[in-house]
Order: sequence, then structure tokens, then C-alpha cells
Amino acid sequence: MTQHLPAKLFPAPSRKPGQRHAIELRCEPIDNVRIAFIGLGMRMNSTIKRFLHIEGAEIKVFCDIDEEKVRRAQHIMQSFGMNPIDTYTGEEDWKKICERDDIDLVYISTHYDLHVPIAVYAMECDKHAAIEVPAATTIEDCWKLVDTAERTRKHCMQLENCNYGDFEMTTLNMVQHGLFGEINHAEGAYIHDLKNLILDTENGYWNMWRLKYHERKNGNLYPTHGLGPLCHSMNIHRGDRFDYMVSMSTAPFALKHYAAEKYGPGSEYALKDYKNGDMNTSLIHTKKGKSIVLQHDITSPRPYSRIHLLSGTKGFAQKWPKTIISLAPDGMEPLEEEALETLRKEYVHPIRKELNQKIEQLGFSINEIAKNDGQDFIMDYRLIYCLRNGLPLDQDVYDAAEWSSIIELSEKSADNYSMPVQIPDFTRGDYQVIDKVTYFRKEK
Amino acid sequence: MTQHLPAKLFPAPSRKPGQRHAIELRCEPIDNVRIAFIGLGMRMNSTIKRFLHIEGAEIKVFCDIDEEKVRRAQHIMQSFGMNPIDTYTGEEDWKKICERDDIDLVYISTHYDLHVPIAVYAMECDKHAAIEVPAATTIEDCWKLVDTAERTRKHCMQLENCNYGDFEMTTLNMVQHGLFGEINHAEGAYIHDLKNLILDTENGYWNMWRLKYHERKNGNLYPTHGLGPLCHSMNIHRGDRFDYMVSMSTAPFALKHYAAEKYGPGSEYALKDYKNGDMNTSLIHTKKGKSIVLQHDITSPRPYSRIHLLSGTKGFAQKWPKTIISLAPDGMEPLEEEALETLRKEYVHPIRKELNQKIEQLGFSINEIAKNDGQDFIMDYRLIYCLRNGLPLDQDVYDAAEWSSIIELSEKSADNYSMPVQIPDFTRGDYQVIDKVTYFRKEK
Repeated sequence: MTQHLPAKLFPAPSRKPGQRHAIELRCEPIDNVRIAFIGLGMRMNSTIKRFLHIEGAEIKVFCDIDEEKVRRAQHIMQSFGMNPIDTYTGEEDWKKICERDDIDLVYISTHYDLHVPIAVYAMECDKHAAIEVPAATTIEDCWKLVDTAERTRKHCMQLENCNYGDFEMTTLNMVQHGLFGEINHAEGAYIHDLKNLILDTENGYWNMWRLKYHERKNGNLYPTHGLGPLCHSMNIHRGDRFDYMVSMSTAPFALKHYAAEKYGPGSEYALKDYKNGDMNTSLIHTKKGKSIVLQHDITSPRPYSRIHLLSGTKGFAQKWPKTIISLAPDGMEPLEEEALETLRKEYVHPIRKELNQKIEQLGFSINEIAKNDGQDFIMDYRLIYCLRNGLPLDQDVYDAAEWSSIIELSEKSADNYSMPVQIPDFTRGDYQVIDKVTYFRKEK
Repeated sequence: MTQHLPAKLFPAPSRKPGQRHAIELRCEPIDNVRIAFIGLGMRMNSTIKRFLHIEGAEIKVFCDIDEEKVRRAQHIMQSFGMNPIDTYTGEEDWKKICERDDIDLVYISTHYDLHVPIAVYAMECDKHAAIEVPAATTIEDCWKLVDTAERTRKHCMQLENCNYGDFEMTTLNMVQHGLFGEINHAEGAYIHDLKNLILDTENGYWNMWRLKYHERKNGNLYPTHGLGPLCHSMNIHRGDRFDYMVSMSTAPFALKHYAAEKYGPGSEYALKDYKNGDMNTSLIHTKKGKSIVLQHDITSPRPYSRIHLLSGTKGFAQKWPKTIISLAPDGMEPLEEEALETLRKEYVHPIRKELNQKIEQLGFSINEIAKNDGQDFIMDYRLIYCLRNGLPLDQDVYDAAEWSSIIELSEKSADNYSMPVQIPDFTRGDYQVIDKVTYFRKEK
């Protein structure tokens, strides 16, 4: 039998002369980080409140095409006793913002299609960029981020908050202490029944954009929440790297069933051809011979899960649907509740321990700013902390590119009977410069 | 981009003239089923005891090349007050047994490589065949079982006991009552840390056969436990069928780590090249656009799991690592313990309800014969019940072929960068003759 190599659909563009990798990129410390918020959607109310509690973070600009959202943001500032700040509502005002000389960080929470144009322009204008997930939706855009960051020597961080989840940080700490031995297999997912929002013509997503994605794209449309924490535990582009992957989608049974129930079997929404199915499963193979299962299902009626499973030569951990840790030689036996709690406490990440105290000290607004497992707060805190101290960011531009690249790669595979496709090495050969994730560092 | 179809590595051989499908095969009722047991390994002590409690089952013959095992079997008979029966210990004595005219059913529990030769010869000799899992390990052997059963009109059942698990039967009943709507995705596994047996030179598997499989084969070497129950819930070859699949293996990190710990890093077992990795994950796509995730890991230190996950348009169920059922419109919320128990009781399969009573009545030996969730007893009971009543067996020869075929198919895919391979339609186009699993029937 002829052996077919995985399809190399996306060859790496070569580096421009003088351009070099941005692994462990360090920039000049910025004592007071001046931030522009572009895009003020659902998540931003609490984001603003969080940043008002982070030392050395100064909110300078709000921008959204929806004036009401801008007013609401100003109102939050006011309610915390802050002065009004500059606001923008024009379609292309993000360019003007990037061109200002009093901004250090552009924080991008727009719809997907503007993530890369704004981030690239921000870096070109000598600003650091932070981008909501997914950072990019095409391989071409992933390369744009990488090339721009390498050339401009600016940070480009994808705001993957799930890497800062309590159990995710604890298990990363355990992995780095060798508790599970070598991780040979991991599983992650974004399983979140959002179909009531997806198929809501009134109060759902803006302009029903998420449904439109389901109409025209097949594959894992939202890979980074599940994948990010696994990659850091598996040292992806820190010694190992993605090699090739396959992906498989079901038909959209659940979405169509729900549409028929809600709008009638003869309705536009029930009859429409959706390209994306309910469940997409991808298998990723790493250069060292490890595997990752990654799933996406936002339409089936089932409990929320990101799985977060790590299986190693000496132990095992899983977050959903049940928190389990087991350790060799008793790998078959999940730790009993008490032993599990003791172990979790022992391995709480030092940074999280410190920040948990900080979160508690913050008094009245704790529920607001520490919700979502505290992970949003820690993410923003770490972003500002690293910028202030001239440290490499916890998540670099290669993380952003690698995790986001699964969108188009899974599409190509799922559309072609799950054919294997090569995953670009966004470090262009430099994936062994460091050998593990070094984040949560405090040294200057 | 050129679209590549999945590789058609195993075209279906054509049917012999006059040969026709054996779906819903009915044979003459046999009031007293005379059984020959061939292969008396680990599982057989309790199997013999079970059969001594099944009405209409008569044990006629014991056969094993190990005389000690035969003596032990006779001893069990004696301890239940039964007379000694005919025994065989010659290497090819299974042929003589098949040729006898006082046997109705040959029950095959030998090592893998003899499953198909004995089953085929038994059917040729006008006997029904029951085969331990996996029934076959190659596609060629799968076709031999199918062709022989179709030609001889004899039953050929794979002894997949997991289909008779309590939760598996309950969820099948729920599926058939429409509780979960249409199943769009399912997951199964055989995750069972057996490396202490695999790598035991003294008291492990006979002649270390399982280790030898790991040395020369890559893929899912033991697919049927996880897959069987899913296939019956998804009506495979009862309206839908397997279409294509991909498979991915890790390297053997955990096996080698354990070998180095146990026998030393320089030992033969630590240095050996094992072809099979720790974790193998396969993705199966059905003709109707549904998907199955199937895993095999018998070397990593982690809790036992067959997953058994069913995700449908109206509900969700999962057995490992935690029993969960959730139902639309509250699909995101797992039922609370009490509601879960109530629902499970409501949907206990009628046959299982009846047999649970029978198991309880059996008094002193209940622990012996009803262990393993009672599933072994129910499996054997149903086999004899259907033979006595001239009913189609719960599992037919196509189940045996389909579930076993994953071994070689996964090997071909995993060995070739997870390339997609077509899964043979063992019914040769007759997969829509019936539209659901009809087992647990009682009518004559």
C-alpha cells in the first residue's frame, strides 16, 4: 500500500530578512499601561471593572460602533469615581486609536473578522495587542499575527482565559512538578449548548453571526478554550509541536431539530442547509508521538464540558464531567475526596495563591470581578504584570496562531472525509528553543 | 483542492450464487441446547457455573490443551452434583468435537487466532457458534464468518457481554423509546490498565500473548466492549451503517516507563520496540452522518472506563467516569441523583427486570454467577433462550464482523498518518432490511 503523507495545504511562508523568532520576547517595562478597549460586547462590562482593580493599568479609550455600549462603559467608569475618557464610535476609528501616541496596549474584543486587522495595525503602530478568542479564523491570518509580532517585536497575546482556571493551573503545576510523568494523551472540548442564543432572532448574538458561521463553515469553530490549557501542559512549541491532525463532523441533527421545534418544521431555520454539524471531533498528533482529542459541540442538549483530561505515564487528571486525579501505582483508583482536596491544595499555583488573596481583599466587587473561577481576573492581571515588568507574556503569538489554526485545518479535514492535514509549525523550526511553558514567572 | 475518498482497502467479496443475507436469521427451535466448551481460560470457571443455572442448557464437552484446566472444569461439574462429561485435550480435537452429532452449540473461548477457524468449522458441521471477543482480528476473517453464516444458515454470535450491562440496556431502552431523540454522536472505550498482567513474565497472560500483540500491531486491539452497546443504540446495519474511519495512536510512553521501572531501564522489555502505543483513538463516521469516538488504552495509569456516551437531539447519557443523564429542554443540567434513579428504574429493560429476579432466586451462588453487573449471565441466558425459541440472536454475525473489523481498519489508518479508510458493509447492501435492534424479544 502506498503511504500518503498528510496533506501539506499550508506551507510556511519564509521569514523576511532580519526577522527572527519571538519566543520569550521581552519588551521595555511599562510602569503605567495605557489601554484602549475596542469592542464593548457582552464580556466587557466585567472586563472594565476588573481593569479598574489592577495596579498600573490605565483605561484611556473606549471604542464601539454601538453608541449605547460606549455610554454604558463610561457609566461604569463614573460609578467607580473615574473621569470620563475618550470614546470612538466610527467604523474605522480603531485605526485612529492605534495611531495615538498615548496608548500602550490595544485590547480587542470585536467580532472575529476584525481581530487580525486591528491587532496587526496596532503592532505596526508600536502597540502591544491582546485579542479575544479565537485570535484568527484562517491560517493566513495566523501567519499575519506571527509575522507582524516577529517583525515589530511587539507582544500579541490571545486572551485565553481558560488557561487560568483553578484546576487548569493546578494541573499545570502538577505536570511541571512531574506528578503525572510524561503526558502522552490529552482531551479538551468546548461543549456548551448555546443553540437558544444561536437561534434567537431577537436577543441572541449580534446579527446572528454565530448561526452564519454554522451555515458556511464546518469543523471546530471555537477550539482555543479546550486546547489552550492542554498545550501548555504538553509543552507545545516548547520542545514538542503539533504535527498533523484529522477532524470529523456529524450532520446538524440537534440544530435542525431545535429549529423545527422553535420556528416550525417548515420554517427558514429548520429547512436551511447548515454546513457545520453538531459535534466535531479532531485528533491532533504531536511530533513526539502524543495525541490530543479536541471537540466542539454548541448545539446538542448536554452538560457543559471542556473535558480537560491529562493522561501521563505516572498519573491522570480530568476536570469534566467529574474532577478526578489518580496516581501510579494506583492509577486505576481515583483519589478519594479528601486526598484529592489535600493534593489540590498542595499544588495550587503560587501565583494563584497570591492572587486569590488579592481577589478576596477586593471586597464589595468580588463577585463581579472574580467570577468565572477567577480566571478572567488572573489573565488580565498577568497581562499587565508582565508588561510592567518586561517579562515574556504567559501566552505568546505562537500560542495564538497554533490554537486558532485548528479552525481552518479542521474544516479542511472534516470537509474531505477526515483526511489528515499537516499543521504548520508557526515557529518555523524554533519550537525547541525552550523546553516548557515558563509562565507565571515573577522574576524581572 | 482534490478531494480524496477514503481508501477502499478491503472491497467486499461477492456472495456465492444462492447465498443470501442472514439478518434476523431464525433457525429450528432447540429444546435442549447441547454445548461444547472449547478453551477453558480465566473466564470459564464462572461461565460453567452460569450455564449450570440456565434452563435447557446441557454442557456436553470440555476441551483445552491444558489438562489441568479440563480437570478443574470437571471438578466444577462434580461440585454441582453433575456427572463427568467428555473431555478433549488434543491440539486439533476441536475438529472432532465439531464433527460430533450430539452438539448444538460450540462456545469458543480460545486465544484469538483460533476463534475463526473453529467457528467456521463448527458452522460447516451444522453447529451454531458463539465466540469470545474479539470474534476476529482481520477483515478477511470477518468475511469468513459472514460468508459461512450466510451459506450454512447457522448462528454466529460474538459474546459481547457489555451489551448486557445494566446502564447499557437501560439506555438502549431509553433510546428505543425516543427519550434522547436521534443519537448524533456516541463514545466508547476500553480503558483498562492491564500492564501489570501484560508485563508479567510469570503470572500474566498465557505465553505473554498480549504483549506480543503490542509488539507487532498498532491500533485498537480490543474494540468490541466499547463499540457494541453504541452500535445497538445507533441501529448500525439496522438502517444506518459504518462508512469510514480514521485512527491515531500515541507512542508507548506508559508501557516503556513501566517496563523500565519493573525490569530496569536496560531490560529487554524496556528497550523493545512496541508497535502499539498507549492510547489509540478512532473516529467512525456513519452513512447518516453520525460519529463515534472509540478508544483503547490498556497501559496508562488511569481509572477504568468504557465511557458509554450517547448524545442525541433530545438528551444525553454517559456511564463513565460518572453516571449522567440530561434531557432537553434542560440538557445542560444533569438530572439530580433522585430523579436519575427514578428514571433509571422506569426504563430498566423488561428482560433485565425479569432476569434480575431470576438471579436473586439463585441463592448461594449469586455472587459467582451474577458478578460483572449480571451481564455475563444475561448474555448466556439470552443466547440459550433465543436458540430454544427459534428467535434471531441478540447479536448477529454482522455485529461480530463490524465490531471486530475495527482492529485491522484502525491499524491501517494509524499506521498511515490517520488516513481515512472505508469500512466494509458486511451486509453487502442489506443494512436497511430492519430499522432497529430487535433484541430482547420474547415472541416465538
